[in-house]
Amino acid sequence: MGGKLFFFYYIHLPRQHLLVLFSLLSLAVASQVSASWYSCSIKGLPLVRNLTNAPQSNYGRGGLSHLTIAGAVSHGMKEVEVWIQTMAPGSGTPIHRHSCEEVFVVLKGSGTLLLSTTSMKTRHPDEPHNFPISMNTTFTIPPDEPHQILNSDEHDDLQLLVVISQPPIKVFIYDDWSMPHTAARLKYPYYWDEECFQYNAKDEL
Amino acid sequence: MGGKLFFFYYIHLPRQHLLVLFSLLSLAVASQVSASWYSCSIKGLPLVRNLTNAPQSNYGRGGLSHLTIAGAVSHGMKEVEVWIQTMAPGSGTPIHRHSCEEVFVVLKGSGTLLLSTTSMKTRHPDEPHNFPISMNTTFTIPPDEPHQILNSDEHDDLQLLVVISQPPIKVFIYDDWSMPHTAARLKYPYYWDEECFQYNAKDEL
Repeated sequence: MGGKLFFFYYIHLPRQHLLVLFSLLSLAVASQVSASWYSCSIKGLPLVRNLTNAPQSNYGRGGLSHLTIAGAVSHGMKEVEVWIQTMAPGSGTPIHRHSCEEVFVVLKGSGTLLLSTTSMKTRHPDEPHNFPISMNTTFTIPPDEPHQILNSDEHDDLQLLVVISQPPIKVFIYDDWSMPHTAARLKYPYYWDEECFQYNAKDEL
Repeated sequence: MGGKLFFFYYIHLPRQHLLVLFSLLSLAVASQVSASWYSCSIKGLPLVRNLTNAPQSNYGRGGLSHLTIAGAVSHGMKEVEVWIQTMAPGSGTPIHRHSCEEVFVVLKGSGTLLLSTTSMKTRHPDEPHNFPISMNTTFTIPPDEPHQILNSDEHDDLQLLVVISQPPIKVFIYDDWSMPHTAARLKYPYYWDEECFQYNAKDEL
């Protein structure tokens, strides 16, 4: 994230080199500013934000790139949260459930939605149904139904717009489809909420 | 105008890929489909729906093309709703307020957000602040703050992804910025919810 320390070896350089160096340092400072601009402080965020500078990361999950467009922990949202997620070929979400509503729009690529429609009525999820998903399709996950999204393509990324209610998201993760609902592990805060959760969420969320 | 679907997977992609997507989605456009497929019955809707066939209309508002990706009245959502809106040059929303949260992502074009930040503390909205908005920016409307979005460009459409909480939306409309808050007129159901509201919403919403 930039922030390189150049120190002042330029002291001995001719003036035009100094100007070039100054420009470079300005860029380095600017990139550091934009990173801190999105760091855990909500206060002072501009009303209109450019997504080009928004931070994205895999948050420790291989094959994922996640960007929070508007979130509870990162932007103070109370009722909705909006993400962009990109999944590399072969990657995907864990098998999981949550009580919030969730809307997906497939922006790019194709993949598979696995959804166990029996919800919590049985001891563990039923064998999931497979639904092909592709660019320009939309789907909604019914609350509390265990599901998984996979990029089942061999070559192309799968990119999704994701909208949830009741942020920040509270996720129960299953090791496999035969795991009892009661054994699914709560992961809260979720991966992308971890870093700033204590900073912003302790009293309010 | 067009009502083109123009999602924003370009975040990670070179410009030529963006143009390809734009072309593909332009072809997909205004198949002003079988409203019957989406018509007022929620039961039997497929879980994965192709947006190419989703109905869009101006719902009686000049310069607007509105598409409900997932909605309360049209798809049975309880907590979030997702739209795509395209506004022709010179058109825009009325001055209005609502108590729900609202997130925008500008998918295409540019325009102006007018926002009166004093909310309901004064008798009528204060003079609004103007915020330029453009492709790849995002912004959130604070609950109950009167606002208006205008396509202030002379040539290009403004296209927005819109997410709201507490659907279906309950909107209070102002004739101008000097109208008292108490005189703003409730429009409920809102334009795109009118046709199916009685069919789906009578008991539940």
